[in-house]
Amino acid sequence: MDSLPIQLLSTFIFFLIIPFRASTSQFIKIPPLGALRKSLHVVQSQTLPTSLPVSKDFVTFYYTQILDHFNYKPESYITFQQRYVLNLKHWGGANTSAPILVYFGAEENIEDDFITNGFLTDKASRFKALLLYIEHRYYGKSIPFGSRKEAFKNAGSLGYFNSAQAIADYAAVITHVKKQYSAETSPVIVVGGSYGGMLAAWFRLKYPHVALGALASSAPILYFDGTAPKVGYYSIVTKDFKEASVSCYETIRKSWAEIKRTASQPKGLLSLSKKFRTCHPLNRRFELEDYLDSIYTDAAQYNHPPAYPVSVVCGGIDGAPQGTDILDRIFQGVISYMGNRSCYDMNEYNYPTETSLGWRWQTCSEIVMPIGHDSNTMFPSAPFDLKKFIVDCKSLYGVQPKPHWITSYYGGHDLDLTLRRFASNIIFSNGLRDPYSSGGVLRNISDNIVAIFTVNGSHCLDIHPEKPGDPDWLVMQRQREIETIKRWISKYHSDLLELRTKTNS
Amino acid sequence: MDSLPIQLLSTFIFFLIIPFRASTSQFIKIPPLGALRKSLHVVQSQTLPTSLPVSKDFVTFYYTQILDHFNYKPESYITFQQRYVLNLKHWGGANTSAPILVYFGAEENIEDDFITNGFLTDKASRFKALLLYIEHRYYGKSIPFGSRKEAFKNAGSLGYFNSAQAIADYAAVITHVKKQYSAETSPVIVVGGSYGGMLAAWFRLKYPHVALGALASSAPILYFDGTAPKVGYYSIVTKDFKEASVSCYETIRKSWAEIKRTASQPKGLLSLSKKFRTCHPLNRRFELEDYLDSIYTDAAQYNHPPAYPVSVVCGGIDGAPQGTDILDRIFQGVISYMGNRSCYDMNEYNYPTETSLGWRWQTCSEIVMPIGHDSNTMFPSAPFDLKKFIVDCKSLYGVQPKPHWITSYYGGHDLDLTLRRFASNIIFSNGLRDPYSSGGVLRNISDNIVAIFTVNGSHCLDIHPEKPGDPDWLVMQRQREIETIKRWISKYHSDLLELRTKTNS
Repeated sequence: MDSLPIQLLSTFIFFLIIPFRASTSQFIKIPPLGALRKSLHVVQSQTLPTSLPVSKDFVTFYYTQILDHFNYKPESYITFQQRYVLNLKHWGGANTSAPILVYFGAEENIEDDFITNGFLTDKASRFKALLLYIEHRYYGKSIPFGSRKEAFKNAGSLGYFNSAQAIADYAAVITHVKKQYSAETSPVIVVGGSYGGMLAAWFRLKYPHVALGALASSAPILYFDGTAPKVGYYSIVTKDFKEASVSCYETIRKSWAEIKRTASQPKGLLSLSKKFRTCHPLNRRFELEDYLDSIYTDAAQYNHPPAYPVSVVCGGIDGAPQGTDILDRIFQGVISYMGNRSCYDMNEYNYPTETSLGWRWQTCSEIVMPIGHDSNTMFPSAPFDLKKFIVDCKSLYGVQPKPHWITSYYGGHDLDLTLRRFASNIIFSNGLRDPYSSGGVLRNISDNIVAIFTVNGSHCLDIHPEKPGDPDWLVMQRQREIETIKRWISKYHSDLLELRTKTNS
Repeated sequence: MDSLPIQLLSTFIFFLIIPFRASTSQFIKIPPLGALRKSLHVVQSQTLPTSLPVSKDFVTFYYTQILDHFNYKPESYITFQQRYVLNLKHWGGANTSAPILVYFGAEENIEDDFITNGFLTDKASRFKALLLYIEHRYYGKSIPFGSRKEAFKNAGSLGYFNSAQAIADYAAVITHVKKQYSAETSPVIVVGGSYGGMLAAWFRLKYPHVALGALASSAPILYFDGTAPKVGYYSIVTKDFKEASVSCYETIRKSWAEIKRTASQPKGLLSLSKKFRTCHPLNRRFELEDYLDSIYTDAAQYNHPPAYPVSVVCGGIDGAPQGTDILDRIFQGVISYMGNRSCYDMNEYNYPTETSLGWRWQTCSEIVMPIGHDSNTMFPSAPFDLKKFIVDCKSLYGVQPKPHWITSYYGGHDLDLTLRRFASNIIFSNGLRDPYSSGGVLRNISDNIVAIFTVNGSHCLDIHPEKPGDPDWLVMQRQREIETIKRWISKYHSDLLELRTKTNS
């Protein structure tokens, strides 16, 4: 196997994102958690199948949104146009209180979301659902202050860019749409993946009067201050590789020392540049390390069937002829994964995109996920350094991250204890091969807050578009999700009937 | 009966507040909803019994609070000192996960709260509870921007003064205190009355991970946009008077026309001034009308045993010798209620206090309660005029009220439907003679969100200090509250044990 065919790439890049990666020698990169990986997307989005559900059934609207929901200063009243997309094709209508499925935009353009998310479109007819996709503030066309340049000027204009404001936006848009279609009694199910999944779960907790339930796919709501897992992101990446191939794992584990050793030799960087066919000569060893790190974490996070990118990388590494040295094997892994190219751009994952720039702010303000290279991984040890992180963010934006805020506002500590008799109707779906599943909710909290995971699944796989060749375990996971949501809705409809009857009698 | 004895006054003024009063000819006054009526308090606070629980067991602290929890602009990080008061005398300690009872300060100085609230002190030993009283931002000593003058300068400095910020403050203080005393596993019960009761209920909904349950006394959480009751505040005031005495009710009902008629005659205002022994000659008829309105609504809202102020007022009105004309009867009601004074200050209820100024901002920004003089009351009809209200507030502060925000953020529409399978552990307590009970939750939403009301009770009566002569129905109401809260705590303790055992095994 020497490269991923285009067709496979176009499938698994849908949800490629670069994890929050800690490094020893650099400012910590703060790449997006969810949805599309923009760096690849830029190059390969042309390869997206045209059969995806972008059609005249999707109609775009704009809602006049308030800038700051939690303040009454004059500038809080500034408004911006927030984009949302509706699809009424399958909706059963207000008369039957037919449901509304809402997709929560995350750290990207909503067009990418509604192109790549399959859950809503696949299930629309089954639920007779109205589909609503809402773009997250500061992404896509939902930019305050008139322009992206103004909005991203400094912390003064970025301050309004956070999850609490975003879900308050969503509440306003949903309420508006329900009113528009006299759909006040239609139950709303919110759906999101990754960061969007966190928003969906948090939304059900904060706005139960707006959403009846939430499907939170691959939402690492427990990867925060004080709730961060002991076996974290990079441990899962390591496990994925080890499970795919012990020799592959060993090769990668040993490669870092080999890179270091080579780089420290005279003309070592040049030699590495040649070996890895870099588009530009390496200035620092780190560039290569970082590039490889990106490939391994992406492969693990989006280790989707049928290609299973981790196996693709390992196929390259293991498949090299006997006697091939470690670094050449590593390069074969790169070729397998990225395709055989004339050269490899070490910055491919690092070009600034609206996603990477937005997400950098978000992680440098409130979404502080302490992801580091745990020891006992196949990566060089580099634990998350909160102190350094704070200093770096402060120097970037002039304001400090608030690492305690997420758990203060949304909870997270002792979730079993706090939510077992509070709240309902949340599905936390995960695939255990997704490194972010380490911060996910993996056991039922109660009968109505449930974990639906697959052992072999990857990041956001369940909300991908259904495909004929999907493995049984994935089909089953989706089936359980559907059944669960159907139960919520049917209980809601009978509650509605009962209460209406009571009121009228 | 010609005047209320001082001793009775000192009892029922604890929770005197002036309702949000609509008037035809004036800018709508926006007086406080809960706790103390400052206007009377200023005059009569010296009469407070010295046996109230102000002792060395109450220790005052300050917490460095962040100005804006929902924004990351540099100025959001400004801090202020937030006052809180602890009493550890009865606490069972962290080892036994003994509970913490938290009183939520509302629109007043916290000293007034912990002097006048009885619930915590009465129940501390029974619950072996740590007591915590937290002052609401912008009241008492918890003032941002260094001084009250700076804080109240304009909408720019007042913008941070709202309920969402306030309950986020409370979450931070509670979390801080729990940490200080290693009391992470101690269940927290939050208690509040009136506006403070709304905050308590909303807190349980928004921060279930911080508070196990809430006692929301006389909290009119349904007196907002779209959820406002058809039989509203002034209808209950009217009912209270009618139930106390039909002739008294009739006299009051007819008096407004009589005031109008008299005022329109030559030297009519002078004649009214003399009749009502006003300290200053009346400039407008409205001054008298407004004063009487304040007396009637106060009497109704705080129609506490054993005095029952509505009966006191009616005693004056009905007790005048046969043949006494309407206005003289009305004046006898005033004397009964206010005491026999050399003159009556028509502005007594209107002097600006920290409470009235703070509350005016709050009601002119988010706490928009559409309380008007309903038709079919004993008052001249003057429905709430939202349009005018908005214009008036805008002209006062330069920013518009957001009448839809409370129900957007906290819910309220279809409470039965939205909360019956979500949330738990909230008591909505009310007394049906309290005009604000019209906006209260008066039926059980579920087994764990319950309404505990009394037919004869008044505003916040249940959280008043217990007294030997308290009527049985009041004793019973409190007893039910205690039992309910005990159940929550004991369920929590067994959950805690179960989960800890599971974790350790």
